[in-house]
Amino acid sequence: MSRSDSKPSTRRDTIAAIATPPGTGGVAVLRVSGPEARSLGLQIFHSTQADFQDFTPRMLHFGTICTPAGNVLDEVLTAYMPGPHSYTGEDVLEIHCHGGDAAPSAVLDLLLQHGARLADRGEFTLRAFLAGRMDLTQAEAVAELIAAPGRAALHLAQTKLAGGLGTRVDALRERLEHLRAQLCLAVDFPEEDVECLPPEDLIREVQHIRNRVDELLAGMERARAWREGVMVVLAGRVNAGKSSLLNALLGRERAIVTERPGTTRDYIEEHLLLDGLRVRIVDTAGLRDPSSDTSDAAAATIPVDEVEAAGMEISRELASRAELVLFVVDGSRPLEPEEQRIARDLAPGRTLAVLNKADQPAAQPDPAATLEQLDLETIRVSARTGTGIQELADRIRARCLRDTGEPDPDAAVPNARQAALLRQANQELKALAQDAVQGVPYDLMGVRLEGACEAMEALTGRIAPQDVLHSIFDNFCIGK
Amino acid sequence: MSRSDSKPSTRRDTIAAIATPPGTGGVAVLRVSGPEARSLGLQIFHSTQADFQDFTPRMLHFGTICTPAGNVLDEVLTAYMPGPHSYTGEDVLEIHCHGGDAAPSAVLDLLLQHGARLADRGEFTLRAFLAGRMDLTQAEAVAELIAAPGRAALHLAQTKLAGGLGTRVDALRERLEHLRAQLCLAVDFPEEDVECLPPEDLIREVQHIRNRVDELLAGMERARAWREGVMVVLAGRVNAGKSSLLNALLGRERAIVTERPGTTRDYIEEHLLLDGLRVRIVDTAGLRDPSSDTSDAAAATIPVDEVEAAGMEISRELASRAELVLFVVDGSRPLEPEEQRIARDLAPGRTLAVLNKADQPAAQPDPAATLEQLDLETIRVSARTGTGIQELADRIRARCLRDTGEPDPDAAVPNARQAALLRQANQELKALAQDAVQGVPYDLMGVRLEGACEAMEALTGRIAPQDVLHSIFDNFCIGK
Repeated sequence: MSRSDSKPSTRRDTIAAIATPPGTGGVAVLRVSGPEARSLGLQIFHSTQADFQDFTPRMLHFGTICTPAGNVLDEVLTAYMPGPHSYTGEDVLEIHCHGGDAAPSAVLDLLLQHGARLADRGEFTLRAFLAGRMDLTQAEAVAELIAAPGRAALHLAQTKLAGGLGTRVDALRERLEHLRAQLCLAVDFPEEDVECLPPEDLIREVQHIRNRVDELLAGMERARAWREGVMVVLAGRVNAGKSSLLNALLGRERAIVTERPGTTRDYIEEHLLLDGLRVRIVDTAGLRDPSSDTSDAAAATIPVDEVEAAGMEISRELASRAELVLFVVDGSRPLEPEEQRIARDLAPGRTLAVLNKADQPAAQPDPAATLEQLDLETIRVSARTGTGIQELADRIRARCLRDTGEPDPDAAVPNARQAALLRQANQELKALAQDAVQGVPYDLMGVRLEGACEAMEALTGRIAPQDVLHSIFDNFCIGK
Repeated sequence: MSRSDSKPSTRRDTIAAIATPPGTGGVAVLRVSGPEARSLGLQIFHSTQADFQDFTPRMLHFGTICTPAGNVLDEVLTAYMPGPHSYTGEDVLEIHCHGGDAAPSAVLDLLLQHGARLADRGEFTLRAFLAGRMDLTQAEAVAELIAAPGRAALHLAQTKLAGGLGTRVDALRERLEHLRAQLCLAVDFPEEDVECLPPEDLIREVQHIRNRVDELLAGMERARAWREGVMVVLAGRVNAGKSSLLNALLGRERAIVTERPGTTRDYIEEHLLLDGLRVRIVDTAGLRDPSSDTSDAAAATIPVDEVEAAGMEISRELASRAELVLFVVDGSRPLEPEEQRIARDLAPGRTLAVLNKADQPAAQPDPAATLEQLDLETIRVSARTGTGIQELADRIRARCLRDTGEPDPDAAVPNARQAALLRQANQELKALAQDAVQGVPYDLMGVRLEGACEAMEALTGRIAPQDVLHSIFDNFCIGK
């Protein structure tokens, strides 16, 4: 798809970034893109081959990166990819150094000292888009691919990266453009009956396009759980065993993230990957661990019951947004009045009651009976022995996917931005169809068609104002 | 340096791993090494070039990785590096795919399905060592380089990777071998006076070698802080402002790690990088957040003072191992009797007393005066306003480096394993010198020389038993 004149001009400076995640690893990759990529590389790279003169395009060269004073920062491989057949469309240099913190940072510092600018988030992909190497849906697919939590989301992003969504939307846009041309003809040459577009044909064609758009939008709803993951909230009294239940679930599955740096401790969240579905499990137990000193002091004076009540309050707020609430109770003790009160408030369609401590005799009266009378689904587990934990994981996954099903890997699924534009296009088309039914003259209807076309052009990036690009690429990581 | 027969034979299967750290990033690199690397690549890689037949060595090829069913897992770059001129000395294939979790995992799974084995920790470097591509000190330098917390540690690792330590130790070993040959000559041909080695020459040469070994060992002590970082412990009452002080310090510097996954919450640790020096700051505040339910319940019944006392106990234990203790008190209030008691217990040489809340009027009597009477160095800061925080960071760094100084980038610094072997060699040489002084016959002294030589050979890996290799490479990350 061609590049539109409305796009901002590429900043033609040379950018650099570490493209691999921070942390301990064997290899780190640095990327440099722009007019100085090659000369910058030649300044800091020293090949082990005595006769090295220049980079051979797309060939790996072994050598060292040295400071002007001659200090070796690292042994590296370099690869130079001249534009326009590179990721960004510009000259690109890749430097592969040892992983960890020190070596990649040292090489990056040297690149910046030599005049490269630290790339903004997503700036490599932004340049690829501006150079016409990909449309906007493909650029967004790159970010979606990197963020994909599992195989299903990966396939959805790959479909989009291959142009699956852009091509379909562009085909619909072309049909709209064709309609527009026919409308113009009908207006300009009303007497030539052969060329005329009968209103019923117009309405049928518009309806057809609206149906295609609706299909794309429906795919988004179906894929949401796969792409964004689902949220499960733990609710229940502090000593019902929420934390040990969480640990038991984590013990059976790989924890992707434990407690994100920088978040407050008002609640603890952990991530599970349940057969390709990312589940964010939120627990409010952390409320009793205030991280600032002021609240430390405050907490010491607040009775435990009040702290717990505040925790419950946050649980309820989160629970209203969750796909599923795990209401954890101690199955070996009768329900407390407070628990009975909470149980009555929970929506059975979004609750799974977990009776922990199944390794101990069930209480009399059995809490399960009480909970089932409230139409809550129940499961008995023992966080301590592991009994029922695998079944719990399966039930969590099945309940979260009840309205979703397994994903269609070939679906071209819009993201939130794209969906908003598709809805906008469909509103224009709906109004257009109503106009046609009411016999509004064709020359007044062109503006509706134009609005629908523009929404689709914004989706694929044929029209892409600077601020839109900004908000899209700000969601990328640095180095992509 | 040549490969010794005592090394285990290379397992000749094909290994694969993700060589970049997990997490969000633009690029991930997978490595495959072994006899099947090329054929495996040809099975799963589909070039975008229609006429692609085979990998051109060290050339980047663009294409896709596909499952046998034809599902595209990712768009990738591949590079094939045939042995023996590759990192491992074997055939190596690199696959560069999109970063994140899903794409690298999917490509790795496919490699494993096609018969590759998931590499053990450090197995790529182990193979490089076994293939004679590097000696053992260089292999260890790879791990040290990746773990290097800052520029100083990076240079030290680079020196070792370039063979700086191995070469020096090997030169010393050759001098020992030469001595050994002279001893043999003196024993076998005692009558040929010309070839004889006078005891005083032997003693002088042994002393010379011991001095060189001592220099290497001294470098280790000087570099320890740079390579391993230092530990600083926060001590003080819960509401003196320890956590906010920690946050203020972190706010001025990049936090490398916040709360490691899997560690208990008995204490919180954070890492600062102070001008190339990694500082691990440990705070025991987390003791009031017991993570299991049992202790939750227990904590609720324990008076705050007792919990705090337990926290103090742990502080003291950690403090005894720390380079520096930051004793944090609220400078706007007189010292509590408990604080005075603790202050008397602290070693002035390893304590910096931090008077927080400098934005408020100092208490009367001024706690600083009391602390200084106990010979404790004091500094006034305000975690809230940031006053004094930069000076505090500077003072922390200076105090931790008081016995260390700035590092010598060209020093060849042994690690713990290497140092143990150097000490062992020196003990043999010390005994040898004593033997020579006491006139022990030369033919009884050969075994000492042999012991010293063997220690040096074990250091460079000329002798490397399987279990030693195992323990070395187990400290690597997977994919290196």
